[in-house]
Amino acid sequence: MEKKLTRDTVFYAFSPNLEPAMRVEQGEEFVLETHDCFSGQLKSEDDLLDVLDWDRVNPATGPVYIEGVEPEDVLRVDILKLRVVGHSTMVTVPNEGVLGDCISEMETAVLEYKEDKVVFRDKISIPMNPMIGVIGIAPAEGKVPNGEPAAHGGNMDCTLITEGASVYFTARVPGALFGCGDFHAVMGDGEIVICGAESPGEVRLRAQVIPELKGLPTPFIETPDLFAAVTSAGSLDLAGSGATHNMADFLTNFASLPINDAGLLMSLVGQLKVCQVVDPQKTARFEFPKWVLDEYGFSMPE
Amino acid sequence: MEKKLTRDTVFYAFSPNLEPAMRVEQGEEFVLETHDCFSGQLKSEDDLLDVLDWDRVNPATGPVYIEGVEPEDVLRVDILKLRVVGHSTMVTVPNEGVLGDCISEMETAVLEYKEDKVVFRDKISIPMNPMIGVIGIAPAEGKVPNGEPAAHGGNMDCTLITEGASVYFTARVPGALFGCGDFHAVMGDGEIVICGAESPGEVRLRAQVIPELKGLPTPFIETPDLFAAVTSAGSLDLAGSGATHNMADFLTNFASLPINDAGLLMSLVGQLKVCQVVDPQKTARFEFPKWVLDEYGFSMPE
Repeated sequence: MEKKLTRDTVFYAFSPNLEPAMRVEQGEEFVLETHDCFSGQLKSEDDLLDVLDWDRVNPATGPVYIEGVEPEDVLRVDILKLRVVGHSTMVTVPNEGVLGDCISEMETAVLEYKEDKVVFRDKISIPMNPMIGVIGIAPAEGKVPNGEPAAHGGNMDCTLITEGASVYFTARVPGALFGCGDFHAVMGDGEIVICGAESPGEVRLRAQVIPELKGLPTPFIETPDLFAAVTSAGSLDLAGSGATHNMADFLTNFASLPINDAGLLMSLVGQLKVCQVVDPQKTARFEFPKWVLDEYGFSMPE
Repeated sequence: MEKKLTRDTVFYAFSPNLEPAMRVEQGEEFVLETHDCFSGQLKSEDDLLDVLDWDRVNPATGPVYIEGVEPEDVLRVDILKLRVVGHSTMVTVPNEGVLGDCISEMETAVLEYKEDKVVFRDKISIPMNPMIGVIGIAPAEGKVPNGEPAAHGGNMDCTLITEGASVYFTARVPGALFGCGDFHAVMGDGEIVICGAESPGEVRLRAQVIPELKGLPTPFIETPDLFAAVTSAGSLDLAGSGATHNMADFLTNFASLPINDAGLLMSLVGQLKVCQVVDPQKTARFEFPKWVLDEYGFSMPE
């Protein structure tokens, strides 16, 4: 019997006090259906953002208790299959987002899917790149609303978090209490009007503790081609510095590069990138290509 | 007779008071040889950065007076051919760059070229992507050292500025007084240890006023695939906001998109990216794909 949660099983803040909605073994596949970030409240272009119940924004499906996970364990979560369903919704909101000062008209746009494209204004067909906006685990204490990104993950809005990627977290409570939601059919780095193509969806996942990675600076992402350190902070400058330092930590302490090699190579082939700039906590990532670490004889413990 | 300046004809600050080193017609091709950013002072791995005469850092070759260019004209500079020569030099400097707090040993690394690769530590062969770090024109007044990026261009360290790209500037003085230097054989976005693969080189250029683009927010870049607005400011947050606003200005005032279309599409398929975070003035760019504007029937005036 497949382990699955429907999009009726959601929470709105990551917290150690949540009751697990499902328990899975390490290495066991499970499926989460997710709502869009508006919990499906905007049903047509006539529903503007001012009708929204803000208590039901950014739902994450879960939490999932992963058996045998203990605090300080580094957990790898594999995104095995990711698809969006239905259609996407976008909004413009005066005074919100980077262009809030330019936008005067509140609008809801519905974007239908045609094959592998997202259709904007019946005019522009954009290749899909489904990704997960909110993904994380419980912090050690307190309550982090799903709209916020932090060390536990959350609303990182990182375009690398897509099918075939793995995300590493450091568990803070037994079972980790994992959840995700806020899928985007496509989104650009920055998410500058506060939304991507907001979509319900379904994701197949698997989670596993990797003992050799204890101490890894997390959140950390692995794709088929690269590693990325992700950091959120009160300014993009601080987030960028944090992500850069976390990548240097990984390269020196886990891939065993001398610090000068790490720094010079990060300047040559590493990429400091923006995830999102529309939450009070901005998110940046530092990407480093795997092929360079292959040459140093490093491969990630599995 | 080809118009050409050798790397002996350099300046260290963009200023309206510079004497033109060469005059070219609009549309006329010309060639600039450039030094590396250290003016070739670091000749081997034994020459550490502490031997450097800092008055001779970041030379730009020029200035070139472009006939018929008047203040407020928007000038398109085409990078027709770009090659690096010799070898590259890199440095690590304690307390400089994003990882300055981690780097304790000053080092100079020489990177030889093998075919189309830059070789690091005789171990890692990195595909070349030659680009121009310092490129600009005279500001209206004052003197901007070449190490600084600003509205006139300068040390933007933007990885898009490579062969086949065009850079748009707004002239502030007659003839514009163009110059460039600080080539990198390859560099990652961020340039986090303060240098890329610093290389001498040679570039073939052509410049032309585009009357229809008067008022374009500059610096602005065009590649075969995308447009990019580039902004420098005291923080990455401000630079990112500036670049985002400049792209919205371009999309609404030049490509004639409604502001809501511009904002939503920028959030869907636009990319806010980092150029460099190692000057006191940080540089960001906002990229927008050309194919979307093709669908709106827009093409850039030539």
